[in-house]
Amino acid sequence: MSTLRFALAQIDTCVGGLDANAAKVEQVTRTAVDGGASVVVFPEMTLTGYPIEDLALRATFRKAAWDKANAMAATLAADGYGDAYVVVGTIGTDRANGKPRNRLVVLHDGLVWAGYDKHFLPNYGVFDEFRIFSAGERSVALDIEGVKVGLAICEDIWQDGGPVAELAGKGIDVLLTINGSPYEEGKTDTRLALGARRAAEVDAPMIYVNQVGGQDDLVFDGGSFVVDRDGTLLLRAPMFMEHLMMFDLDTEADRQQVGEVAAPMDPDEEVYTACVLGLKDYMAKNGFRGVCLGLSGGIDSALVAAMAADAVGGANVQGISMPSMYSSDGSRDDAVDLARNLGAHYDIQPIETLFKAFEGQLGVEGVAAENLQARIRGVIVMAYSNAKGLLALATGNKSELACGYSTIYGDAVGGYAPIKDVFKTKVWQLARWRNRAAHGGMGIGGLHVVGNEAGHPGTPAPDGILIPVSSIEKAPSAELRPGQKDSDSLPEYAILDQVLEAYIERAHGRADLLADGFDENTVSTVMRLVDRAEWKRRQYPLGPKVSALAFGRDRRLPVTDAFRE
Amino acid sequence: MSTLRFALAQIDTCVGGLDANAAKVEQVTRTAVDGGASVVVFPEMTLTGYPIEDLALRATFRKAAWDKANAMAATLAADGYGDAYVVVGTIGTDRANGKPRNRLVVLHDGLVWAGYDKHFLPNYGVFDEFRIFSAGERSVALDIEGVKVGLAICEDIWQDGGPVAELAGKGIDVLLTINGSPYEEGKTDTRLALGARRAAEVDAPMIYVNQVGGQDDLVFDGGSFVVDRDGTLLLRAPMFMEHLMMFDLDTEADRQQVGEVAAPMDPDEEVYTACVLGLKDYMAKNGFRGVCLGLSGGIDSALVAAMAADAVGGANVQGISMPSMYSSDGSRDDAVDLARNLGAHYDIQPIETLFKAFEGQLGVEGVAAENLQARIRGVIVMAYSNAKGLLALATGNKSELACGYSTIYGDAVGGYAPIKDVFKTKVWQLARWRNRAAHGGMGIGGLHVVGNEAGHPGTPAPDGILIPVSSIEKAPSAELRPGQKDSDSLPEYAILDQVLEAYIERAHGRADLLADGFDENTVSTVMRLVDRAEWKRRQYPLGPKVSALAFGRDRRLPVTDAFRE
Repeated sequence: MSTLRFALAQIDTCVGGLDANAAKVEQVTRTAVDGGASVVVFPEMTLTGYPIEDLALRATFRKAAWDKANAMAATLAADGYGDAYVVVGTIGTDRANGKPRNRLVVLHDGLVWAGYDKHFLPNYGVFDEFRIFSAGERSVALDIEGVKVGLAICEDIWQDGGPVAELAGKGIDVLLTINGSPYEEGKTDTRLALGARRAAEVDAPMIYVNQVGGQDDLVFDGGSFVVDRDGTLLLRAPMFMEHLMMFDLDTEADRQQVGEVAAPMDPDEEVYTACVLGLKDYMAKNGFRGVCLGLSGGIDSALVAAMAADAVGGANVQGISMPSMYSSDGSRDDAVDLARNLGAHYDIQPIETLFKAFEGQLGVEGVAAENLQARIRGVIVMAYSNAKGLLALATGNKSELACGYSTIYGDAVGGYAPIKDVFKTKVWQLARWRNRAAHGGMGIGGLHVVGNEAGHPGTPAPDGILIPVSSIEKAPSAELRPGQKDSDSLPEYAILDQVLEAYIERAHGRADLLADGFDENTVSTVMRLVDRAEWKRRQYPLGPKVSALAFGRDRRLPVTDAFRE
Repeated sequence: MSTLRFALAQIDTCVGGLDANAAKVEQVTRTAVDGGASVVVFPEMTLTGYPIEDLALRATFRKAAWDKANAMAATLAADGYGDAYVVVGTIGTDRANGKPRNRLVVLHDGLVWAGYDKHFLPNYGVFDEFRIFSAGERSVALDIEGVKVGLAICEDIWQDGGPVAELAGKGIDVLLTINGSPYEEGKTDTRLALGARRAAEVDAPMIYVNQVGGQDDLVFDGGSFVVDRDGTLLLRAPMFMEHLMMFDLDTEADRQQVGEVAAPMDPDEEVYTACVLGLKDYMAKNGFRGVCLGLSGGIDSALVAAMAADAVGGANVQGISMPSMYSSDGSRDDAVDLARNLGAHYDIQPIETLFKAFEGQLGVEGVAAENLQARIRGVIVMAYSNAKGLLALATGNKSELACGYSTIYGDAVGGYAPIKDVFKTKVWQLARWRNRAAHGGMGIGGLHVVGNEAGHPGTPAPDGILIPVSSIEKAPSAELRPGQKDSDSLPEYAILDQVLEAYIERAHGRADLLADGFDENTVSTVMRLVDRAEWKRRQYPLGPKVSALAFGRDRRLPVTDAFRE
């Protein structure tokens, strides 16, 4: 029997953080090789972080990444790990035209061996790779200790044809893929089905190593796996945590042995955990240790506060109740209960006096007066952020964001918005799921949950419920005028979210929506709201471009950019 | 002699505004044909507006555009204009894969004739076309009344090879190009040189019709022209205004006759006018009739106010002075003088009482207290915007935006930022230029200037100066603490702007900047500021993506989207 041990290193990197990323690669490689691995496989663009956007276009950055790869190879060899084959993603340069390349290299014997350049460059959804990189044109199979290892990077397996098709019939022993595939509901099954198809195509097991962690507004879920040529799931790493696991390839066997296979996650737990990890990593990568947010007693701020407590512990959460003359007593009580349950700091900053001062001076009424209340709260939240160095959290959900049902520079202020991609009906589901998790004492996959070492224990409610039930069950209201309800301005969320999903995510037009069975009045309302809300979703002012590079419209460096030339 | 008369129709369209765009095409076609034109040429994506971004991906929109093109052809024929050849840009669909196409069609004889699909799809800077469209693969030459007319769309002439190269040697009589080329300083000369090169390549005159007007954060400058095969500039339209001009092609002549050639614009006038037109069109396309802005007495807000008065008349400008305990008397006087010169409305809203109310309740100090002042002003500006339906203008310039030298949700609030792409040193230059223009009674190209029919006459200063000289000459200060100067926090603007230009626009790294001759301390300061300012430039909170389509990171419809399915 001839076997080769691969270590699948599912790690969390930081865009631009060459030093920290390299140190992690070195450390994980030592652990893996000490555990018997001959080949250690890291995710796409391990060294540079991913997605690096226009940082790729800086020649000085590419030079620094190249120097760092060489330094890593030298360090590993000097430490006695030169025999291992360390597969890392990094950035290269196309010699023909000077454009960047999305590259896989192999560190071995103290040197950096050029491996493979990504062929298919995704340019849809969140991806802008065709804009940034030039495409590799060759398929590559490495010979590692007599084992033929075919190579591919992420999108290369999502498209038919190209390098994977070229490897078919070439007798490779294993297809090795490195990935930076962002989380999306339901993607686990899609990836596995795809992997099985490619394994069958090349008639060899496929190794899929994915990045994990939050990077700006993306979350990578990990879930690395190995699938056999017959579609059998051989290994699967847990989602949303760093993980190292071994795969022993037996080149003489028709079927490989099944090893550890992480169980699938509950769908609500999956989304909740994605939001928590996104926040946690955003804070870590930007140097924030605590958060502040307004606690209205409503479900959105309650859910966000629970997520924050799960991410960094309740003791690092500063809740601010900012009641006005329109705030109900129930809302205030719910906010107090929540803060107590989470062990969060809790301040009360009434806004009535401030509001009256503005109102007296400016004489505004109607919507302008409603917005004024929200903006006074925004000023207070930002004052806490500035004075205490806390990350301000915006608590808006996707339904209200889509419809523009928020006050720009008011409740929409903040540096991070944990539930901005979660529809309101899903917000309720996640809150109920989180309460069940607290109630039953369930662990939360990969997270430091409230009450564990990272969390402040808080004082659980007598019934063990974390998020007050009345926050979940009461009719949603912005509480900016007496008796106000969301349903005064918006269709019921159960309908609204369905229309939004069809109009936004599936690009259905008016005729399609009517054919979907939605009534004409609802369709017109939703389309009008969504089409007019774009400005609020941007928030930064537009302005005319007069130079070659204007901010705003042009691409930017990611926010979590640790690179300093 | 065999001649064919082409009308170059340099028009301003609106993204998504199918009805209005079509009506304009029909009206201009009538005028042009009545003036003897056989061929009427409109800009790139005339019918849909440009750039349409992800609106292109909506099948319902493509269907509506197709129906509208047919309706236009039918209307023109019914009105007796069916003999004309009307060249318009629109959107098509690739039959092979259903992707959109950037298409030129010809309306003739009541029908829509498929013409030519854009081959090179720019995917850099502000352009995302490769992401959206599929590429045409054929070069096309039409026979119009015996004249061979080669076709190209915008980027097709900016790249070597492709359809224009294929037309070379084919004996075309004229190369007709339709364009949506955004304004950029110095681009007029670049375009002309390029046009001359392509005309020589195909050995025929080249017609270049460009879009004019503001669309979201782009400004299209027009400047349509015809250049002969020997490089002679035959015709040139003025910049920044709609214009119709005729070109008589003599197919038997080696050289064509020179017609009207607009003189080049002064470089400062060019940038100033771009900013004014951008604002004017943003307001028109979004239904705003007036603006409000804070007037501090500083140069940035003074210049923006002057631009606003030039765009929509001083009577439609609401200036708000919001003095604090740190505002100098000089600043207040300058703001009053400016408003009087512009004929703008002027209110005084002191912030000291409001500030003390917040300060007393929150107990903040230092930077948090400075930001608090700016945010109170932001709340006031937005209250004016809400209460009076005015567009709030942000007055930040590119230098401070790049360095993050502003308060998020404070002085940075607003729906449009006229000078966001203008460096501070250029701000001073533009103010001086505008004063010279006012003083000498010069006309301003294409604009309705203060004092003309669109403007409120105001009360000119005795010396004829529009922007108070002390606003231009005093040391810049945010006036958020006693004696504060910009130079406490930033390098001198004369140096800063040079470093920013090298670091941002030319992607120079640390080593390059030192080699450029900047001192190490300045380089480190500027790099640190710029790298950390990204979050402020975005303003909207990031948040984790958990669905196929999340707002923020994914592409959006343009703001000025007049399309309703």
